[in-house]
Amino acid sequence: MSTNESKRTELGQLGEFGLIEHLTKNIKLKHPSSVKGVGDDAAVLDYGSGKTVVSTDLLIEGIHFDLSYTPLKHLGYKSVVVNLSDIYAMNAQPKQITLSLGISNRFSVEALEEFYAGVQAACDFYEVDLVGGDTSSSNRGLIISVTALGTGDADKLVYRNTAKVGDLICITGDLGAAYLGLQILEREKQIYLSNPDVKPDLEGQNYLIGRQLKPEARKDAIAAFAKAGLVPTAMIDISDGLSSELFHICGQSGVGAFVEESGVPIHPDAQMQAINFNLDPITCALSGGEDYELLFTIDPADIDKVKYLPDIYIAGEITPASDGIKLHTKGGNIHDIQAQGWQHLGKTDA
Amino acid sequence: MSTNESKRTELGQLGEFGLIEHLTKNIKLKHPSSVKGVGDDAAVLDYGSGKTVVSTDLLIEGIHFDLSYTPLKHLGYKSVVVNLSDIYAMNAQPKQITLSLGISNRFSVEALEEFYAGVQAACDFYEVDLVGGDTSSSNRGLIISVTALGTGDADKLVYRNTAKVGDLICITGDLGAAYLGLQILEREKQIYLSNPDVKPDLEGQNYLIGRQLKPEARKDAIAAFAKAGLVPTAMIDISDGLSSELFHICGQSGVGAFVEESGVPIHPDAQMQAINFNLDPITCALSGGEDYELLFTIDPADIDKVKYLPDIYIAGEITPASDGIKLHTKGGNIHDIQAQGWQHLGKTDA
Repeated sequence: MSTNESKRTELGQLGEFGLIEHLTKNIKLKHPSSVKGVGDDAAVLDYGSGKTVVSTDLLIEGIHFDLSYTPLKHLGYKSVVVNLSDIYAMNAQPKQITLSLGISNRFSVEALEEFYAGVQAACDFYEVDLVGGDTSSSNRGLIISVTALGTGDADKLVYRNTAKVGDLICITGDLGAAYLGLQILEREKQIYLSNPDVKPDLEGQNYLIGRQLKPEARKDAIAAFAKAGLVPTAMIDISDGLSSELFHICGQSGVGAFVEESGVPIHPDAQMQAINFNLDPITCALSGGEDYELLFTIDPADIDKVKYLPDIYIAGEITPASDGIKLHTKGGNIHDIQAQGWQHLGKTDA
Repeated sequence: MSTNESKRTELGQLGEFGLIEHLTKNIKLKHPSSVKGVGDDAAVLDYGSGKTVVSTDLLIEGIHFDLSYTPLKHLGYKSVVVNLSDIYAMNAQPKQITLSLGISNRFSVEALEEFYAGVQAACDFYEVDLVGGDTSSSNRGLIISVTALGTGDADKLVYRNTAKVGDLICITGDLGAAYLGLQILEREKQIYLSNPDVKPDLEGQNYLIGRQLKPEARKDAIAAFAKAGLVPTAMIDISDGLSSELFHICGQSGVGAFVEESGVPIHPDAQMQAINFNLDPITCALSGGEDYELLFTIDPADIDKVKYLPDIYIAGEITPASDGIKLHTKGGNIHDIQAQGWQHLGKTDA
């Protein structure tokens, strides 16, 4: 399940600048706004009009990813996608990224080439330019920092703090699958560690594993909004699970939410795998994270604009803050949704 | 020599979002171009005119800094400064930064408050806004990623690849001191580790230690250039030592350089300390790094514009590439300057 390396070039053979040059030599700038890319103290961008949007993420080996089951190419792709997802969640268009890496000597040049191939594939698919970064050694593991820049029209940017009572709560796609994909990969890793001769059993799990290893940002949804003339009233990307994102929107907007369990999209594979794992599918959707779908709210007057869009699920309604953040279960019960998030903090030591 | 903590609040007590809110609650946005700061998927900036410049740096505990002798407040300050230095090196003005942290459970909330106090002090002094970031746990040590954004006039941005034969090579301040400060701190650390009762002997070393722990970016030099109507022909900040930066400018501009040892500014304290350490002062200046002065080239016709500026040293001349990159020593010898840089890569393991 790890990356195959037929050739191994030590990083020291190239040196820092040789390495950067080697890894970035195929980069071609696509945007007129990318004036100067890799190779100076700073990249130079030209945003003549509109607003500039910037987002940044830090990914740390052992916390955010496990290289025993994550191919480096997929990791490069995902590192870009998680950042672009934040730009789309502003209803903006990403244009450039910077990428900084902390690399231990465990990695060969070929391994980094695979990582960059994934970065490049994401840059190509999402039409963004890699314009700069920093490369350093790390004393343990791989550290990835991506900053994305984008542009949007001032009157079309969508924030988290602007949901209003009566707005409809919408989701762009199914939730919980990425989390379940991770559980499958973790299970197979444990089996492999206890008996390296057992082959991983990933049969029929392509969808869930794909959602974990190669997520996509909803560029297409933002494009569909523009085509339909829709500007959501509030929006956030679902990186930490639906409940956590609901808490952000409700907390910042000073409102509550009433969510129908039956309105939360869950893929049949996720449904089945959750049950296999003895988990409640809705809990996976609420707390799982890493689906990178968009959670957004719309004025009910705009319902015709979303109704015919593919992959848009109406999951509930914005309520007064005093009503809290509630889930109406399929069984007819109503209970409080709990805030999740930053599960990472609990599991580390110094 | 480490930070005193009278109170200790575990990170888990606040949670991720509580922590970010706690650490960023005193941030006030200064720039009209800072439309939206911390608290959404992305920061929103408005650069109506000019070019946007972006730079990013990754700092890793154990590689770039040692907390046994680096106060967290100084580290916060320096983390910002090293990034702003890249923006000034484009002859641009920094306006915003994003800050991402990977934090192990070793750190208390109070420790992070100290770090942020340093970040805030740098933001205040350099008049930049902290507009976003990402906070995560790390499994070992502190990881800091800063991205700086700034603006500059298209016709005044200064690149690395535009030095011309005959240009004068200039430096904004003395070199080698930060490296020697680091050597003093490392020596005292080793003494302390072998006998914790021995007090560190830092007497009379304020200048060198200050250059290491609290460097400044040369905002004032950029302002002086503007006032004098000077636009350098090429520029880079000196983060990896003069030789490394000369190689960048010469390599990218397709030129050579002839540097006079007598023209390379070295502080008397650095001079003396180098000799105490049995090091050649000019070697410290060429290879030491972390001084964050600016190396720039000017058209000789502009010499009157720099001649009366304080702290500008003319160190040599740009030559044809075929002449190589040479140092003319005080002893009258001429020898090749060696490229340095990425010393970091050699000293790590997996």
